[in-house]
Amino acid sequence: IEAQDAGRARALTADVHEADVGAILEQLDPDQRPALIQLLGDAFDFTALTELDETTRVEILEELPPETVAEGMRELDSDDAVYILEDLDKEDRDEILAQIPPVERLALNRSLDYPEESAGRRMQTDFIAVAPFWTVGQTIDYMRDAQDLPESFHEIFVVDPAFHILGTVSLDRLLRAKRPVKVSDLVNEARHLIHATDDQEAAARLFQRYNLISAAVVDESDRLVGVLTIDDIVDVIQQEADEDIKRLGGVGDEEVSDRVWSIARSRFPWLFINLMTALAASFVIGLFQGELQKMVALAVLMPIVASQGGNAGTQTMTVAVRALAMRELGPHNVLRVVGRELVVGIMNGFIFAAIVGAMAVYRFGVADLGFVIAAAMMINLIAAALGGILIPLGLNRLKVDPAIASSAFVTTITDIVGFFSFLGFAALWFGKM
Amino acid sequence: IEAQDAGRARALTADVHEADVGAILEQLDPDQRPALIQLLGDAFDFTALTELDETTRVEILEELPPETVAEGMRELDSDDAVYILEDLDKEDRDEILAQIPPVERLALNRSLDYPEESAGRRMQTDFIAVAPFWTVGQTIDYMRDAQDLPESFHEIFVVDPAFHILGTVSLDRLLRAKRPVKVSDLVNEARHLIHATDDQEAAARLFQRYNLISAAVVDESDRLVGVLTIDDIVDVIQQEADEDIKRLGGVGDEEVSDRVWSIARSRFPWLFINLMTALAASFVIGLFQGELQKMVALAVLMPIVASQGGNAGTQTMTVAVRALAMRELGPHNVLRVVGRELVVGIMNGFIFAAIVGAMAVYRFGVADLGFVIAAAMMINLIAAALGGILIPLGLNRLKVDPAIASSAFVTTITDIVGFFSFLGFAALWFGKM
Repeated sequence: IEAQDAGRARALTADVHEADVGAILEQLDPDQRPALIQLLGDAFDFTALTELDETTRVEILEELPPETVAEGMRELDSDDAVYILEDLDKEDRDEILAQIPPVERLALNRSLDYPEESAGRRMQTDFIAVAPFWTVGQTIDYMRDAQDLPESFHEIFVVDPAFHILGTVSLDRLLRAKRPVKVSDLVNEARHLIHATDDQEAAARLFQRYNLISAAVVDESDRLVGVLTIDDIVDVIQQEADEDIKRLGGVGDEEVSDRVWSIARSRFPWLFINLMTALAASFVIGLFQGELQKMVALAVLMPIVASQGGNAGTQTMTVAVRALAMRELGPHNVLRVVGRELVVGIMNGFIFAAIVGAMAVYRFGVADLGFVIAAAMMINLIAAALGGILIPLGLNRLKVDPAIASSAFVTTITDIVGFFSFLGFAALWFGKM
Repeated sequence: IEAQDAGRARALTADVHEADVGAILEQLDPDQRPALIQLLGDAFDFTALTELDETTRVEILEELPPETVAEGMRELDSDDAVYILEDLDKEDRDEILAQIPPVERLALNRSLDYPEESAGRRMQTDFIAVAPFWTVGQTIDYMRDAQDLPESFHEIFVVDPAFHILGTVSLDRLLRAKRPVKVSDLVNEARHLIHATDDQEAAARLFQRYNLISAAVVDESDRLVGVLTIDDIVDVIQQEADEDIKRLGGVGDEEVSDRVWSIARSRFPWLFINLMTALAASFVIGLFQGELQKMVALAVLMPIVASQGGNAGTQTMTVAVRALAMRELGPHNVLRVVGRELVVGIMNGFIFAAIVGAMAVYRFGVADLGFVIAAAMMINLIAAALGGILIPLGLNRLKVDPAIASSAFVTTITDIVGFFSFLGFAALWFGKM
């Protein structure tokens, strides 16, 4: 297809959904991607670029001449255009914006002025707003005649002359009403206003909670400036969940298409932090060199205590981080949840203390060793339960995303408590005898 | 409020969105919840129950008399009713269904017959279907007169007499068209049919990929049986992301409101598996008791190698599991991604081998120890990279959800490789001298 056969390429992609065009682009070699887009010319729908991941998208855009991109942007809904432009560096972006007619450029610039990940960045600036005294018939006629409507929409907005929002009318209500009815009779009070500077995650939570399809976005003086639609919100939800998963796993904003260098660089800090915590644990072990020398069995068993603690702590932490992200953990149930984790920690502590104690006795034939490891296991699983819940809660209170930092803290605690309690008990117990 | 003051309770909740009523219910004591619902009587919108988590919802439903629940169900959209009923055990569910009039019962039963987590469970069975030869005017008049329409809708379906779907018309297109236009001229080919038995996750991916608002659900003979709407899909997306996060963290379907017993029970298997892998690692250490006895520094340093490997493996695994879940990792890029992980593993291996080697020399003053730990670190980080990517890929090929089992496998590998390589190198190196 790449043999410059523009006609054929156009014919082949004419009937293909933009999401699939995006998938085709991803399968191509990096240098073939811009080539295909130029080959397709007008027939290429830039919406396809929104389906790609960031690295790939930026690479393609940097290869294309700014005029081509500007041309493509003009065809897009404003939210898609902003989505594509926001990842470019300032220079490339300005070059493209310079090629876009002033009115549209102004609108795009205004959206781009909102902070990253804000509702203002995600909103669509084309929408339908009517006065409350219009009738259903007038509104329908207006929509039939109007040019420049958004590609699709699900609600219209009722506004006063100053563009303060009075309410929304969903299309199905509009359709079911008779023509002479006034829109003010159909209006649903717009209870869920989103400020353009609100975080996209907060907006997503509103959509989820109230099962919204679209919502009005207002500026600081409460004037309607745009609409957020559910399809953008779906992407936000996915993106936020993704962020949580990756942060818990100790990786940054990495994507499968990232280059080796950027991956190695982004993973390094986490590994480095982990190294520090491992060194701390190793320092604790170092305190007990004398005991280890006398009884090698301790060295064989000590990772078991630490590892069980780490695992139990991660379990508790995962549930806590997730509950915090979903706003399911708040003042009304925090005490209950902490208490419950403590009880679970004690229960699992008992069970695994018994199992591991019995195994240690069986393996090394030293009954005392069984008691020591059982006690240490018990203590470490309780520490894991408390650490797993209190650390995310504490970070959350400090306004740090618990998904980012909890992992490192929790395993540090369980490693240190695990090694210290096991080796410490051993030192006390065997030292006295 | 709980002083049986029904009037006041109704007045207070009359203007409150059902999602907020759900939140109010969650804040109450468990035994006050059904009391409030009975107090509210007809004024209680059962939709509020869909906003609660499963444990709380089932508890409430079991307390309420089946007639009350049946009455509430009748007011609901079919998808919400199914959502509420599906978690009950068969006996309770039948009791409630028995109180529902035959026609509605039949529809609910048919939805409940589809497998769990299938599109058929999530779909709405009320929808608007018209013949292709109808005009826009006819359609609008039909909608104005029709009773029993779904609470809100965004598309109408065009079907042939046998209810095979011919296409969809979005409401905005319908509104913008003139009355005499035939709906067949407005129709969008319905390219994205979902089978009622399809997995809800597959349906969610279609919605995301093509930015759908609603999609037709068809039965095995391709007849239209229902509609999936984006608000249900948002829940599905959230739920699936939640599942991935929790599985990676080694917890099951746990929710913050679960009771101590069910939590302890559901976490136990993961901790037990971890214990087994910790024992395996401990067995490896046991092979080198002689070396440990001679040189206690080995015991102090060995957890560092294992811990760095575990962390690096988790990083790679997290990215791989997520990419698999999002279908971003497939035959077209798997070799590239595996190669890239290997390179990243080697790079980070070099860096951390150097750091940790230098630290070991500084701490213990034995240059050879530095070489041994550096070599072990290098090998373990490469093993971590390969394990982190190949294990999720392998599990995925075996049709096991990589989110469930990868963690345990990856840390087993990095623990064993870490201890074995470090202690093994030490044995070889110092044994010879």
